[in-house]
Amino acid sequence: MSANPIYLGVIGVGGVGNAFLSQLSRLPNAPKLVLLARSTQTLLSPAPAYSPSIPAGDWKCAAEAPSLTKSGPLSPDDIASYLSSAPGRSILVDNTSDPTLASSYPVFLRKGISIVTPNKKAFSSDLGLWKDIFATAAQGKALVYHESTVGAGLPVISSLKDLVATGDEVTRIEGVFSGTLSFLFNTFAPVSAGGPGAKWSEVVAKAKELGYTEPDPRDDLNGMDVARKLTILARIAGLEVQSPESFPIESLIPKELASVPSTAAGIEEFMKRLPEFDGQMTEIKEKAEKEGKVVRYVGSVDVGKKEVRVGLQYFDKDSAIAGLKGSDNIINFYTKRYGTNPLIVQGAGAGGDVTAMGVTADLLKVVERLH
Amino acid sequence: MSANPIYLGVIGVGGVGNAFLSQLSRLPNAPKLVLLARSTQTLLSPAPAYSPSIPAGDWKCAAEAPSLTKSGPLSPDDIASYLSSAPGRSILVDNTSDPTLASSYPVFLRKGISIVTPNKKAFSSDLGLWKDIFATAAQGKALVYHESTVGAGLPVISSLKDLVATGDEVTRIEGVFSGTLSFLFNTFAPVSAGGPGAKWSEVVAKAKELGYTEPDPRDDLNGMDVARKLTILARIAGLEVQSPESFPIESLIPKELASVPSTAAGIEEFMKRLPEFDGQMTEIKEKAEKEGKVVRYVGSVDVGKKEVRVGLQYFDKDSAIAGLKGSDNIINFYTKRYGTNPLIVQGAGAGGDVTAMGVTADLLKVVERLH
Repeated sequence: MSANPIYLGVIGVGGVGNAFLSQLSRLPNAPKLVLLARSTQTLLSPAPAYSPSIPAGDWKCAAEAPSLTKSGPLSPDDIASYLSSAPGRSILVDNTSDPTLASSYPVFLRKGISIVTPNKKAFSSDLGLWKDIFATAAQGKALVYHESTVGAGLPVISSLKDLVATGDEVTRIEGVFSGTLSFLFNTFAPVSAGGPGAKWSEVVAKAKELGYTEPDPRDDLNGMDVARKLTILARIAGLEVQSPESFPIESLIPKELASVPSTAAGIEEFMKRLPEFDGQMTEIKEKAEKEGKVVRYVGSVDVGKKEVRVGLQYFDKDSAIAGLKGSDNIINFYTKRYGTNPLIVQGAGAGGDVTAMGVTADLLKVVERLH
Repeated sequence: MSANPIYLGVIGVGGVGNAFLSQLSRLPNAPKLVLLARSTQTLLSPAPAYSPSIPAGDWKCAAEAPSLTKSGPLSPDDIASYLSSAPGRSILVDNTSDPTLASSYPVFLRKGISIVTPNKKAFSSDLGLWKDIFATAAQGKALVYHESTVGAGLPVISSLKDLVATGDEVTRIEGVFSGTLSFLFNTFAPVSAGGPGAKWSEVVAKAKELGYTEPDPRDDLNGMDVARKLTILARIAGLEVQSPESFPIESLIPKELASVPSTAAGIEEFMKRLPEFDGQMTEIKEKAEKEGKVVRYVGSVDVGKKEVRVGLQYFDKDSAIAGLKGSDNIINFYTKRYGTNPLIVQGAGAGGDVTAMGVTADLLKVVERLH
C-alpha cells in the first residue's frame, strides 16, 4: 500500500474509450497516463522519464503539445516494451475490440503489465488463449480484470468469480445478455400485449433507427455477441468451452438473407427483404402466447450437464426475464447456496458510460492491489 | 504480491461464524487462523511463533489440542495486541453483532489490523464511529470490508462503492432489505391474490414457526434492522446520517404491544394479542389493491433531498419490488449513468451460508490487497 506512481497505457478512443478517459480525468490519485493509442496515432510521454503525463480529459489538445512524443500505430510488442520500461508498475487498458491486441495479452502479462479491458475477444476465442492468459496471471506478476466483457458495468464477472472463489457450486446461469435483443423482444412480445402489436421487421427497423443495433443488424441477430459472453461465463464457472462456435447458437438471420453482403447496399437489401420473414416470428410469438408465455432471446449455461445454449426460449409472464424493461440485461445465477431463487443482477448492459464505468472500477481495483 | 503468511483472528461461532469457518477450511492458500474467540473461550496459536494454526474446519476438536493456548474471553485491546504482534500482516473477522467490539475497530485499524465483518453495528451507529473507522483506514495501514452488512453476500456495498468511486451520481436507492419482511409481505399481499388470503397475524406466526423471524418477531417488525442497512447505504452515497434514529422509521409493532416485555412469556403474549390488530393491516392491503397495487416494506434513500425513509409503500404489480419471491432482498440503484432503469441486485439477503460467502469473498479481497 505504498504510493509509488503507476503508469497507464490506454488503447482506443471510441465510445467506451472516450467515456473512460473522461472518468479517468476526474479520478483522485489516478495512475499516470503515459500512452494513448488510436488506430492512426500514438501519443507517448517521453522516455526515460515517462513525464509529462498525458491529460486524460484533454488528450485532443494535448496531441498538439510539443512535450509529448507522437508516433504512428505501434505494435503490441512495442507498446509492451514501452510500458514495461516505465519506472514503476504499469497497466494496459484495452478499449478496443481488436482480436490481434487481445491475442497479445500474455506478452503484456509476462512483462508484468496488468490488463483491464471490456474487449471480449481474448476471453471468448480459442480456449488456449484463455489458459495462457490466466496461467500467466497466476504467476503473480500482473493482474487481469475484465468486468465489462459481460453486462458492461453490471457486477456480473465479479459476482460469478466471488461465488466460485468462496466455494459455492454454480449450477446454472441464465439471462438476457444483449441490450439490442432485449429491446427487440421486450418491444415485439411485451408481457402486457394488447392487440397484434408491431411486426418483427418493424421492431428491427425501429431499433436500427434509434442506434440500438450495430450498423449491420445481423451482427446482433446472429447471436455471436451473446455466444461470446456465454463462453466467458461458462469458462469462469469451470467448463472447458473450446470456442463460441462449439455450442448451438440460434441465429435470427433468415437463411435466405445470410449471404447478402455486409455493405451499405447489402444492409439496405437485408432490411428491405426482412418483412418477408415476419410470419415466422409472429408464429413463434403466438405459440408462446398460447402457453401464457412470452418469447425471449437468452443464453444459458448448465454447469452439471456441461451445456451452453444461445437462442429463443419461452418464459412465464411473471418471471424476472419476461419482465425486463427497455434494453436492460438480466443475469440469473443459480447456485447451491442461493437455492431455489437465483442471485439476480439487472440493468443497462451496454452504452459508453456504463461500460466505461466497469473499466474504471476494474482499474481502481488493480491500482489498489498494485499499491 | 508476495506470499508472506497472513494471520487471521475470528470472533463468533454462531450461524454465520460456523458457515464462515467451513468455507475458510476449504480455501486454497487461506490465511493462518491463529485466534478463534467465542463468548466463553478464546483459542490461540502460541506466541511468539503463532504456530501451529487452528484448523478452521475442525476447531471443536482442536480446542482440546494441547498445542493450542486456551484462555477465557479476551478484551478487544488484548485481541488487537495479540494480532498486531504476529510476524506478518493480520486480519480480524468479526462474525458477531457485538456493538462493543464494533466500537473498537479504530483500535484494530490503527495497529494495522484489517477488518472484515457482517456486523452492522460499527457502520450504522453514531456517525463519529463511522468517520473514525474510515479516516483511520484512509491512513493506509489497514483495510475495512463489510459487504455482508447489507443483503448478505449480494453485491450491494461493492456495487455502490464502485458507482461512487467511478464518479457516477447516485440519485436514489430503494429496496426490500429484510428477508423476514420480504417473506411477510410476499405472503400477506402476493401479486396474484385470489380471495381474501391469510391474516397478518397468521403470516407472522407462520414466519416465526419457520424460523424466518428473530426469536422476538418485534426485532424484525420494528424496522430497526432495515434502518441500520439504510444508514450504511446512505453514508456510502455521501449523506451524513447521524444515526439510524435520525430519520423516520415506520414500526409494524402496534403501540399497544410495544411495552410487552421481550421475555418468553412476553413474546407469547405478543403473538396472542397480534390478531387484535389484523384489521389495520387488512385495511392497508385493501387500499393498495383498490389502486391496483401491492404493499411492501421498503427502505429508500433520496440522495438529492437528503432523505432516508423506512416503512410501508405501494408498488405497481409489474414492478420488480412487487414481484419479489420468498424471502429475497432487492436493491435498486438509480444513478445518472444508468438513467431510467436502475441497476438491480436481487436474491437471498439472509442466512448463514450466503452471509458467510460475503465475508469470505471480502477476506479474499483483503488478502489479495495485502499480498
